[in-house]
This record gives sequence, C-alpha cells and structure tokens, in this order.
Amino acid sequence: MTHSFAITVYYEDTDMGGIVYHANFLRFIERARSDFVRRLGVDQNAMRAAGVVWVVSRIEADYLSPARFEDELTVDTTVEKMTSARLTMAQVVSRDGQALFRAVVTAVCMDMHTGKPLRLPAELRASL
Amino acid sequence: MTHSFAITVYYEDTDMGGIVYHANFLRFIERARSDFVRRLGVDQNAMRAAGVVWVVSRIEADYLSPARFEDELTVDTTVEKMTSARLTMAQVVSRDGQALFRAVVTAVCMDMHTGKPLRLPAELRASL
Amino acid sequence: MTHSFAITVYYEDTDMGGIVYHANFLRFIERARSDFVRRLGVDQNAMRAAGVVWVVSRIEADYLSPARFEDELTVDTTVEKMTSARLTMAQVVSRDGQALFRAVVTAVCMDMHTGKPLRLPAELRASL
Amino acid sequence: MTHSFAITVYYEDTDMGGIVYHANFLRFIERARSDFVRRLGVDQNAMRAAGVVWVVSRIEADYLSPARFEDELTVDTTVEKMTSARLTMAQVVSRDGQALFRAVVTAVCMDMHTGKPLRLPAELRASL
Repeated sequence: MTHSFAITVYYEDTDMGGIVYHANFLRFIERARSDFVRRLGVDQNAMRAAGVVWVVSRIEADYLSPARFEDELTVDTTVEKMTSARLTMAQVVSRDGQALFRAVVTAVCMDMHTGKPLRLPAELRASL
Repeated sequence: MTHSFAITVYYEDTDMGGIVYHANFLRFIERARSDFVRRLGVDQNAMRAAGVVWVVSRIEADYLSPARFEDELTVDTTVEKMTSARLTMAQVVSRDGQALFRAVVTAVCMDMHTGKPLRLPAELRASL
Repeated sequence: MTHSFAITVYYEDTDMGGIVYHANFLRFIERARSDFVRRLGVDQNAMRAAGVVWVVSRIEADYLSPARFEDELTVDTTVEKMTSARLTMAQVVSRDGQALFRAVVTAVCMDMHTGKPLRLPAELRASL
Repeated sequence: MTHSFAITVYYEDTDMGGIVYHANFLRFIERARSDFVRRLGVDQNAMRAAGVVWVVSRIEADYLSPARFEDELTVDTTVEKMTSARLTMAQVVSRDGQALFRAVVTAVCMDMHTGKPLRLPAELRASL
C-alpha cells in the first residue's frame, strides 16, 4: 500500500540558491506522514491531549535533484517495517514521475512529559 | 531603555529572491522579544508549565530595505505601552545603523487550554 | 472578486504553545497571494529570470483567535487598491467561517540586483 | 579539527510536542556549516554571484533526545572526508555535553543554472 500526497512549492520553501531549501523536504514528508496516519484513524490531537507525541528517531535522506518554486510534487509513503515501538517508512518526493528526494524515516511515540518511549497507537497497529 | 539583540542571516532565512523571506523578520524580532523578557526575569518555560503562553495580537510592519545572507543585523526593542493585559513594543531591525525593518508588536498572555486572555506576568509588570 | 485558498495546518506550523506560530500566518497568506497572481497570469519564475521579484512593503495584521494542528483553514484575498507600483490586498484566514487572522498587505516589485522598485507586471495591471 | 557553534532554541524552533521540531535540527547544523566554511575563507555570496551554490546530497540523522525552548546547544562539526567534488561532515548537537542529535552530511557544489555538479571551492580544498 502506498500513500500519495500532493505538495506545491511556495516562496517560503525556496532559498537564495533558487531551489527548495534542503530541510524543507523534511517538512514535506512530515505532512505526508501526518496525512497518512490520520487516514489510518490516528488522532494526533487526542494523542497529544493524552501526553503522547510522535517523534522522529532516524532519517536517511538522499537529495537527487532540486525542486523549484511552483513545482507540483508528489510524496509517496510506504511502510517498510513496524514493531510495537517503531514505524519505519520509505518516502519519495517526485515531480512528473522523476524522484527528487528519497528518505527512510523511523518514528516512535514518546511521553511528552517524561520523554520516555511508548508503544505505537493501537489503531495504527491494527491497520497496518 | 532599549534592548539590543544580534542576528546573523543564514541560508534558511533567504528565499529565491536572494533576500530574507519577509515572514522571517517576524521570527527575528520574536527571538529579540524572548531574550528581552527573559532578561526581565520572565520564565516562559515555567509560564507554559502553568498553562500560560504569550501570543501576538497585532503587528504593524514596514519593510524598508532587504536583508541578505550573512548580514549581521541588530534588533532594537523598546516598550511603547504596557497595561495589565497588553505589552506593545517598537522593534527595528538594522544593519550598520541603517533600518531595514520596523514593527510595532502587541503581545498578550493567554490560557493555553481555554484560549482566554490573562494578565501579564507580575515580574514583567514590576520590571517595566 | 475574492480569491479563496485552502490551507491545512501541519506539525511544522505549530509551536510549543500548541497553536500555529504567529509568523506562519504570513507564510499562509503568501501562499494564497502566489496562487492568486498565478491565476491572473503572472509567472513569478519568468519574472525572477528577468531579475524581478515581488517584495512585501507593509503588513498590518490582527490575530483574533488561534489556529491548531489539523485545522482546515481558508484564506480569502481581495484587492483593496492597485497603483502602477503597489498592490494592496486584504486577507482573512478563517476556520468554519470564523475569522482567526486578518491582514492588509502591500506588495511591490523590485529589481533583484539593484533593489530598485519597478512597475507591477502588465498582466496583473490588465487583469485587475 | 572540530568547529563549535552555539545555538539558542527560540519559540519558532518548537512544535506542539513542546520540543524542537525535527526538521529544525537540519537548520541548526546548516548554520554551523555556513559558519565553518566562512571561517575557512569561503564566500558563499561571491560563489552565488558566480552561479555556484552548495547543496546537500545526503544526510543520515539520529535523534537521540529532545531539545527544548531556551536550551543552549552546541553544534560540533568535523570533516570526515573530502574529495574534489564532495565534502562529508559529522555533526553533533549537544546540550551540556549530552548529545541530542547526530548527523553525517554530504554536501556538493552545483551550478545554479544548469543543476550540474562542480568542484568544491579552491579555498576550501586548500584549507582542509
């Protein structure tokens, strides 16, 4: 199962090199992950009210080709691996079928107050 | 009393126009305000633990001249007016004495959970 | 004529107050302005290739009520005034019909290399 | 040789989890790299005027522990490997000696207009 998500590049995303600032690809793929888990029934607002937040624990990212202002991008997300504590996803940002950026992202759940790791949400484990 | 605060412009701050992205001046002057209230004894972490956050209620901003990568900027902040509920500050961002950006910012305190306005911190009212 | 534009609030937009960081409303309304001028036939990539960029010269902004993670927002943009050199727009960000943020933004065109002001694009002046 | 660089965490850096938004660590370490190459005599403004920009080609990042508002962080940067075309650096963000974030970043130089890779600046190759 691949989750696809559309992004348009705006002025705020660019830098003086005339291309998308590299850190902003992490924002793009995080929007896609938020949309992905929401569609699987995970309510991040309710999680946070209960003191639980998602945090990224590891990212491996390759920048293949620049993205530019007004580009229409697609973020494709697939689950690589899930344990009770960690979710690893492969994410590709592409434009017209050309991959511009690839990442493998591992996310975990954390208790906001203690910083301790927690099990992933039950809805998610049931869906995947 | 004027509070002065130094900012260096980094890549992240620029946009494809080759200058500082306009919204980032708001980040710059917010850093200066955070430093300003901290020096007056306001502990924003403790405020937030008590469910209180600062929020901006109004900004009037004039962009006079662009800032560029590696510019060394100064943010000067002066209090224009304080009531029990609102703090209004004039802030100027300059480079080598030339004003690039001017703003008048009104900030208030809000209950994080109810969204209701609250009185300003006592330490601040005592100091100003 | 009012231009309407949809925004979803993501994690990146929030701050530790649990609400949208104030400067990010300026990013939201800039996305709406970029979409607006693009629909009027203005090609900002072509402008930039010719050394011309839009810059904001003045913003007056009122923060009425906070926006939160996963909010579906609408940015409504109307032209207040246009001269050969300046475009002034009123912009409102709302959620379910409730205004959260209002701004009046004046934009001008600038020569990227000299920093000098320029006339607004002919396509825009013809359309409005 | 290790380059050290100080960062203070501001409101803009946090997210609704009450910690630094993960993508912002990439901004922090990029500030450190900009400072590092500047001290080695690389003038990124001059590079860009000549149509050359730095781009990141690969990042491997591990998030070890959260950073919070008003934390005083240190970014330590060491060169791992340099060829005529690529510079690989190890970067660690720490607070009071505790590592919070580690990354290995590979950067290359690119022709802004053609997107083609270029040799690294001579000043840099001479210094390292």
